[in-house]
Amino acid sequence: MSDLDMMLRFMLQAMVVLVACRVFGWLGKRFLGQAQVTMEMLTGIILGPSVFGLLAPQIQRNIFPQFTTIGDLTSAKHPSMSVLYVVAQIGLVLYMFVVGLELDLSHIRRHVRSAISVSAAGILVPFVLGCLLFFGFLGNRTDMLNAAMSPTILAVYVGAAMSITAFPVLARLIYEAGVQNTTIGTLTLSSGAMDDIAAWSLLAAVLAASKGNPSIALWAILGGIAFVAVMLSAGRRVLTYIEAKAAENAFSLVLVLLFFGAWFTDEIGIHAVFGAFIVGVAMPKGAVSEQIRARIEPLATGLFVPFFFVFSGLNTKITSLVGLDVWLIALLALAVAIVGKVGGCYAAARACGESHRQSLSIGVLMNSRGMMGLIILNIGLQQKIISTQFFTIMVIMCVVTTFLAAPLFRKIYRPESEAELAAAHA
Amino acid sequence: MSDLDMMLRFMLQAMVVLVACRVFGWLGKRFLGQAQVTMEMLTGIILGPSVFGLLAPQIQRNIFPQFTTIGDLTSAKHPSMSVLYVVAQIGLVLYMFVVGLELDLSHIRRHVRSAISVSAAGILVPFVLGCLLFFGFLGNRTDMLNAAMSPTILAVYVGAAMSITAFPVLARLIYEAGVQNTTIGTLTLSSGAMDDIAAWSLLAAVLAASKGNPSIALWAILGGIAFVAVMLSAGRRVLTYIEAKAAENAFSLVLVLLFFGAWFTDEIGIHAVFGAFIVGVAMPKGAVSEQIRARIEPLATGLFVPFFFVFSGLNTKITSLVGLDVWLIALLALAVAIVGKVGGCYAAARACGESHRQSLSIGVLMNSRGMMGLIILNIGLQQKIISTQFFTIMVIMCVVTTFLAAPLFRKIYRPESEAELAAAHA
Repeated sequence: MSDLDMMLRFMLQAMVVLVACRVFGWLGKRFLGQAQVTMEMLTGIILGPSVFGLLAPQIQRNIFPQFTTIGDLTSAKHPSMSVLYVVAQIGLVLYMFVVGLELDLSHIRRHVRSAISVSAAGILVPFVLGCLLFFGFLGNRTDMLNAAMSPTILAVYVGAAMSITAFPVLARLIYEAGVQNTTIGTLTLSSGAMDDIAAWSLLAAVLAASKGNPSIALWAILGGIAFVAVMLSAGRRVLTYIEAKAAENAFSLVLVLLFFGAWFTDEIGIHAVFGAFIVGVAMPKGAVSEQIRARIEPLATGLFVPFFFVFSGLNTKITSLVGLDVWLIALLALAVAIVGKVGGCYAAARACGESHRQSLSIGVLMNSRGMMGLIILNIGLQQKIISTQFFTIMVIMCVVTTFLAAPLFRKIYRPESEAELAAAHA
Repeated sequence: MSDLDMMLRFMLQAMVVLVACRVFGWLGKRFLGQAQVTMEMLTGIILGPSVFGLLAPQIQRNIFPQFTTIGDLTSAKHPSMSVLYVVAQIGLVLYMFVVGLELDLSHIRRHVRSAISVSAAGILVPFVLGCLLFFGFLGNRTDMLNAAMSPTILAVYVGAAMSITAFPVLARLIYEAGVQNTTIGTLTLSSGAMDDIAAWSLLAAVLAASKGNPSIALWAILGGIAFVAVMLSAGRRVLTYIEAKAAENAFSLVLVLLFFGAWFTDEIGIHAVFGAFIVGVAMPKGAVSEQIRARIEPLATGLFVPFFFVFSGLNTKITSLVGLDVWLIALLALAVAIVGKVGGCYAAARACGESHRQSLSIGVLMNSRGMMGLIILNIGLQQKIISTQFFTIMVIMCVVTTFLAAPLFRKIYRPESEAELAAAHA
């Protein structure tokens, strides 16, 4: 396949992806009250073998070929998938940097005790339930998880995938409702942020451990800790200096640091998105960070991230879910995810003195796995920890929990104090 | 090579490219009075085999591998080059769209007669000299041009490559000098824009004709004309509608149209950049176009376009210029380019009543080939019209003419009327 053909196909894919994202985004907003990004998750699945590929297999394979076929034989991965992969990864790295940029650590400081409780419960309960699910139902399913790996690692991976929270989705819903300055707003934002940091660290540990070689794992874990420590101290000082002095070079220098973080964490065996995210967190928040966000976000979310959803959707094969037992596991996984997350967060929020409605709202928001869930799953598939079948089961879980968040939050949440009322109507 | 390795290498390349562009950009601004983009052209060459590859061949090949080597044998193209190619092309397509966006056709209307003269002379003289150069010195050099193609096509290609003008460089110099509203400013902007449109059309015809098959060529030429006609009429209306009604969908829909234009022109055998450029020209100029520009330009010029310069630089091999005759041809090509362009524009401007200094200033500005020249040359190399050797000769010509523009313009240009003085000091 020549480079020219590669580019032709990429442009065709770009048109299809962008149009589909807008059409389904509009439908979702109009009829389901869903956010654009939620509908884009679904669009990725629709454009893959699960829907488009079932309805018009030939056309779908022409636009998004996953394998090169010679005669009747399906052979190697199609070269255009490598381009799709890199473009999707560029999107993710830029996007996770923006997520980090938007995460203001000062939020966390204000509600640190409640946030720790909600976040810890919101991770621990689904994590433990995920491990139980693994040992009870998945331990002997070599069709779902890589039997060559240690059961402990697999259990931790399933637990980590269960306990992630979609910080960006949650942040968007809170800002949309205008409650970011109320107790529930800051508490949920803080818990979500802590959740993300914890789940990514957990995943980093799993990835490190999955290498089998203890010295590689040690290197990854120590390297990861050192990276976070250096980035949040010296890195932050470098970024502060860039912000103050670099003027027209600031944007480029921040991009260099962003790619350095992504490259370093990928190189030590964690994942590029973690590094990009930490560089975003380390960046001092202000006019310069806002300007950099405005320069990166439009193309990242408007063009590159949709490619990630499509890449992910191409690997999602709902047709691979065959048999009653498989569907029962899918339902069970969904139930574990929802009960664990909503239940854990609800109980912790109640224990911190929040009302029934407030606590349930927090739980429902924290329950959305969104894109963060998809990222973790794609890493698991890429690293051959999970099979396409289990990947599909977990993608359904991510999509369903994300779809539930907005409508349930609107239904459950009521401003309780005058301050919240004022904020919600501002 | 796994996808993960591909991404690791891409991030490493991104860091090296961004740092090198900033370092050389700073040096160029500080010591040579050159613009960032001019220095980035040079940085691409420096990172390729011509400089970095000579100084540290092993390191250069590790970061930017062009070929996969098995033992001592240099074999197929390295797979990372395809990624580099697509990323570079995404950059070009986005960039050419922005160039089109910045091109306000109303400028041309105001000075239409003088602009036609200057532009026509600025194309015709170097074009004819380029053809003469071909028939005099290149016709029998099968080491420089593809002997399997008809001499006419080759001559027209050389002529077209000689007659291009770097509209963006020229626009930047004019805005920097603050003379955009004076006669010389609008006249040069208009001529430059017309030059670009003419040279791109010429190139489109060459590419179409180079296919050998007349029906393919006809399809390309008629398709290209139809595309421009439809885009500037119905397309402009669609874009006006999008601008007025689409609100938050406007950005995505414009991206769709942009990729459609790029894909269509590529598919009919012209080139993606031409389609993207025309969509940019068709877009009505106003607040929405300005907003879209602000969303695309930073990442396009700050991250993706530098990859084009590197891709181009990897193909530039100054070591391929061996022998006195080759260097004489290189000097001759440079002389033809400068004499043809500066001379042609100067004569036409004088004939339109401009002073000696004004006319020379216009000639010097129009003489810069900048990135537009590199794009045309890379297309020629990609389509196997020219060899690496002739590509290198012409790249040198592009870089030298671009480097001359800023210092010569500053030296030659003097505001002549009070209005120009006021504008230049505003």
